[in-house]
Amino acid sequence: MAESMKGLKRSNRCTEIGVENVGQVVTVMGWVQKRRNLGSLIFVDLRDRSGLLQIIFDENDIGKEGFEKAYGIRNEFVIAVVGQVEKRSGAVNENLATGEIEIRATQLRILSESETPPFPIEENSNVKEELRLKYRYLDLRRPDLQNNLIMRSKVATLTRLFLANEGFLEIETPMLTKSTPEGARDYLVPSRVHPGNFYALPQSPQLFKQLLMCSGYDRYMQIVKCFRDEDLRADRQPEFTQIDMELSFVDIDDVIEVNERLLAHVFKEVIDVDVQLPIQRMTWQVAMDRFGSDKPDLRFGMELKDVSNIVKDCGFVVFTGALENGGSVRGINANGQGAMPRKKIDALVEFAKGYGAKGLAYIAINEDGTFKSSFGKFMTEDEMQALIDAMEGKPGDLLLFSSDKNKIVWNVLGALRVEIANSLGLLDKNIFEFLWVTEFPLLEFSEEENRFTAMHHPFTMPMEEDLDKLESDPGSVRAKAYDIVLNGTEIGGGSVRISQNHIQEKMLELLGFTKEDAYERFGFLLDAFKYGVPPHAGLAYGLDRMVMLMAKKDSIRDVIAFPKIKDATCLMTDAPNVVDAKQLKELALEIIEK
Amino acid sequence: MAESMKGLKRSNRCTEIGVENVGQVVTVMGWVQKRRNLGSLIFVDLRDRSGLLQIIFDENDIGKEGFEKAYGIRNEFVIAVVGQVEKRSGAVNENLATGEIEIRATQLRILSESETPPFPIEENSNVKEELRLKYRYLDLRRPDLQNNLIMRSKVATLTRLFLANEGFLEIETPMLTKSTPEGARDYLVPSRVHPGNFYALPQSPQLFKQLLMCSGYDRYMQIVKCFRDEDLRADRQPEFTQIDMELSFVDIDDVIEVNERLLAHVFKEVIDVDVQLPIQRMTWQVAMDRFGSDKPDLRFGMELKDVSNIVKDCGFVVFTGALENGGSVRGINANGQGAMPRKKIDALVEFAKGYGAKGLAYIAINEDGTFKSSFGKFMTEDEMQALIDAMEGKPGDLLLFSSDKNKIVWNVLGALRVEIANSLGLLDKNIFEFLWVTEFPLLEFSEEENRFTAMHHPFTMPMEEDLDKLESDPGSVRAKAYDIVLNGTEIGGGSVRISQNHIQEKMLELLGFTKEDAYERFGFLLDAFKYGVPPHAGLAYGLDRMVMLMAKKDSIRDVIAFPKIKDATCLMTDAPNVVDAKQLKELALEIIEK
Repeated sequence: MAESMKGLKRSNRCTEIGVENVGQVVTVMGWVQKRRNLGSLIFVDLRDRSGLLQIIFDENDIGKEGFEKAYGIRNEFVIAVVGQVEKRSGAVNENLATGEIEIRATQLRILSESETPPFPIEENSNVKEELRLKYRYLDLRRPDLQNNLIMRSKVATLTRLFLANEGFLEIETPMLTKSTPEGARDYLVPSRVHPGNFYALPQSPQLFKQLLMCSGYDRYMQIVKCFRDEDLRADRQPEFTQIDMELSFVDIDDVIEVNERLLAHVFKEVIDVDVQLPIQRMTWQVAMDRFGSDKPDLRFGMELKDVSNIVKDCGFVVFTGALENGGSVRGINANGQGAMPRKKIDALVEFAKGYGAKGLAYIAINEDGTFKSSFGKFMTEDEMQALIDAMEGKPGDLLLFSSDKNKIVWNVLGALRVEIANSLGLLDKNIFEFLWVTEFPLLEFSEEENRFTAMHHPFTMPMEEDLDKLESDPGSVRAKAYDIVLNGTEIGGGSVRISQNHIQEKMLELLGFTKEDAYERFGFLLDAFKYGVPPHAGLAYGLDRMVMLMAKKDSIRDVIAFPKIKDATCLMTDAPNVVDAKQLKELALEIIEK
Repeated sequence: MAESMKGLKRSNRCTEIGVENVGQVVTVMGWVQKRRNLGSLIFVDLRDRSGLLQIIFDENDIGKEGFEKAYGIRNEFVIAVVGQVEKRSGAVNENLATGEIEIRATQLRILSESETPPFPIEENSNVKEELRLKYRYLDLRRPDLQNNLIMRSKVATLTRLFLANEGFLEIETPMLTKSTPEGARDYLVPSRVHPGNFYALPQSPQLFKQLLMCSGYDRYMQIVKCFRDEDLRADRQPEFTQIDMELSFVDIDDVIEVNERLLAHVFKEVIDVDVQLPIQRMTWQVAMDRFGSDKPDLRFGMELKDVSNIVKDCGFVVFTGALENGGSVRGINANGQGAMPRKKIDALVEFAKGYGAKGLAYIAINEDGTFKSSFGKFMTEDEMQALIDAMEGKPGDLLLFSSDKNKIVWNVLGALRVEIANSLGLLDKNIFEFLWVTEFPLLEFSEEENRFTAMHHPFTMPMEEDLDKLESDPGSVRAKAYDIVLNGTEIGGGSVRISQNHIQEKMLELLGFTKEDAYERFGFLLDAFKYGVPPHAGLAYGLDRMVMLMAKKDSIRDVIAFPKIKDATCLMTDAPNVVDAKQLKELALEIIEK
């Protein structure tokens, strides 16, 4: 039977006690991590969010009844202990913040008992994630998860304070709103008052923050939930959190400047990492050419090389065919991987196919300078040597080539590069390599829809230098868009927005919007643009991803208190779930049974 | 045609320039509040979120082309101006922060033109709210709304920082979750992956924050959107914002202590109001008896008096009948209102009926000591005098009586008291009277459902003193619940939570939950309670209401950037709206046509 804490007041958290408190009487409360008997004594490791503290129960101090109570303690009981701080009688535990001291208990209350938990509450537990997520309230007791969430809280607090000091106002935008033009699928919320009508949950506060700029708020920020009903991919959540901002009367450099200082501040304060400023910048074109990715991981080299010129007259039709189709032939040099077993190389070929490659050509250079190659028989020895030279191939290297349309070649080699680096252990989580990627294409041509789509979103400003190509060659127009990349992950992105009506109209026309469509979807923004728009630009970070990298984790689920799994369900609450017929009737909805 | 700001960089916001800058060249950007010609000069009042600044265009400084451009400026154009700061040549404008200076323009760019707005952008505009909300992006330019949102941002920032320093962690709880037992109607979100299943948007993070306490997070806070699909009342929004918190190893006084310091800090820093600590406390019973309300407005007196004993044997059957039915007779004394015209008194009677009264008895005491009364003929002169004495009625006073069940009498007189005070101008928005109301009843008996319902919510701890009455007399059990009231508005509330399984089970039983029901709805919380629960308590503020009072406004719409109107629609975006048939099909939903 649980006791009340009435009359007791916690004096310290577990690790807020040290040798300086020896002799004092303290009151501590927390969970029992471990209880063990040693001779006539009972030892308890008491746990709270700050860490562990050792308690000693001695019948001479606490009396018979108290000692018996202590004897009944089990793991995860919640207890309150009054006792005196003393230097450890046994060996100092250097793994504990409180390793030099212990509490000699004079009072004990069992505030709450506990059944045996379905898995032990300990760091780096090896328990299946499904079980951990079902009992998330227990999983969240583990010190590694606690540290992640404490870190996340710190990131949010420091970010807000930094931005407040930079003149940003925190302004809340609506959650129940209208479908926004981000392009992903909206989560809908049926209206009861207006049957047959629906709100949409925001994919981002994009339109609202632009309106706030039109309204003169100058600098806006918000840490805000966004929602996308996307097809299920590895590490996505139906709801995710953005650090969102927008600034007026600025250009790219102004946005980058304040954000670099923000990043440096947060990384220094939270994980003691020095971010070298200015963060290097790379155009999208260079990023693709060198790394096959618009979010290059700069922790390692293995850069792409364009060998189209070298192979353009060779006898290997896979190469020459790709070039004739307007594509390219590019390669990467996996230094020192020349002895990779055939089975592993085959696995890489399969991996490449997953990214759209028809195959993958390779040259494995032996230590003696001879080589094995998947396409050697189609090339002369000189052609082969020229290719190896172009790739700076040395004995022991493995050269991998992809030939296809540029987009596929980039995708394949970009992914392969990371895959190989990962298998070689080059992705060191203790290194933080930041990069701005700039000058993204404004538009992407969608073969599927046979029209241009916005690479960033329809409100992104073209580069002034390219404005005259909007009409003549829209595909080549670059945008005033920028992404901030950390270790190969895009942690944020943004753009200068269009603030001139005639450019916005042209952009919407290029995207295939009729005037009616455009007004139907975001007429209020187009209307707002009639009444004086300041130049403005913004950026949004994915907080989940950013904290995941800071915490050196592989999944955003490790930095979210109550995450959902791949199929968008919550294993703890069983959401989503069925609802009463009455609720559906109120919403004038009927479920179509299959 | 709009010009680019390329090559220009804003040096200061409008009011960041003063006499100390005289002689300097500055670059300012903003909206044209007003343009007027005076002789050979053009004067422009430039506006940004900081305030107004006067610009002078003189052809001698800016040249012919620049001057002509300035001549074309209209209200709400967005312009950039480079110029020299000088002391005002004309009279100093003491209404302006920048009233001593002006900018003599040497460069002008028109960054964006503006059509004539549908209403003027000025403080305390008299425009119909519907029009303001349709053009909210223009309405938000008005200085009073800007000040409100800037204040709101400041409140949020200060609150977060204060709580972070007190050891609170900001932890995000899910938006897409399971129906919670708050009792109001949930907003539902259909699942596409699991057709026929729905998420609910949270009415509050109640269950999740209790789980976080079970998980050892110790102190949690969040400023978070909550959702209630309620029937439409005056000043409610479908989505509203809570400052939400929960604390472990605490009792009522601990929660109150940290919150009093929070309130004092925020009110001092934001609106320079000194909150006297400790804030006074009043039990629910006393609040009802003295003020007829569980959220008494203490800015004025006019307290209720129970005169049941005085009239118990009188001849007026309305009074005696109420007493016989277990009710009471109570009155208020509207000092000095004895000469209120009959028509006004009739209006008060009608007002009272709106609160469930069958009528309203009154005695209007003339200056000469005689009186008019609605029930004088049913009472002896002595009885009448005793009643007047009990009410401390003096010449010129108006005494108003209600007789019915206590609940109705309280409601009627509580509302009447505020209504009369309002008509007398006693509700001074510059006075801030705080009050904790404590010891709420745990349960309310619902005649409608013929069962007890939770007054606060099902997880509220009964007072230890009353635990033994849970079985024998549940209606009389008081809860460890507390509300914080400001000027008659509940701005926050909370409770100590049940942390003991057997009490939680008893409570759910009293509320009529079967064990299956309870597990179906929040089994994960009941399960969590099996594994060691700390004593915990929490509180949530309505941020919208709190800021509304701080900003001295009458509607929360004035402190929300993009509010909805009574029928839960947004006049600016037209949300909610119809969606594509394809979207509904993906959700396996069909609209039932009427």
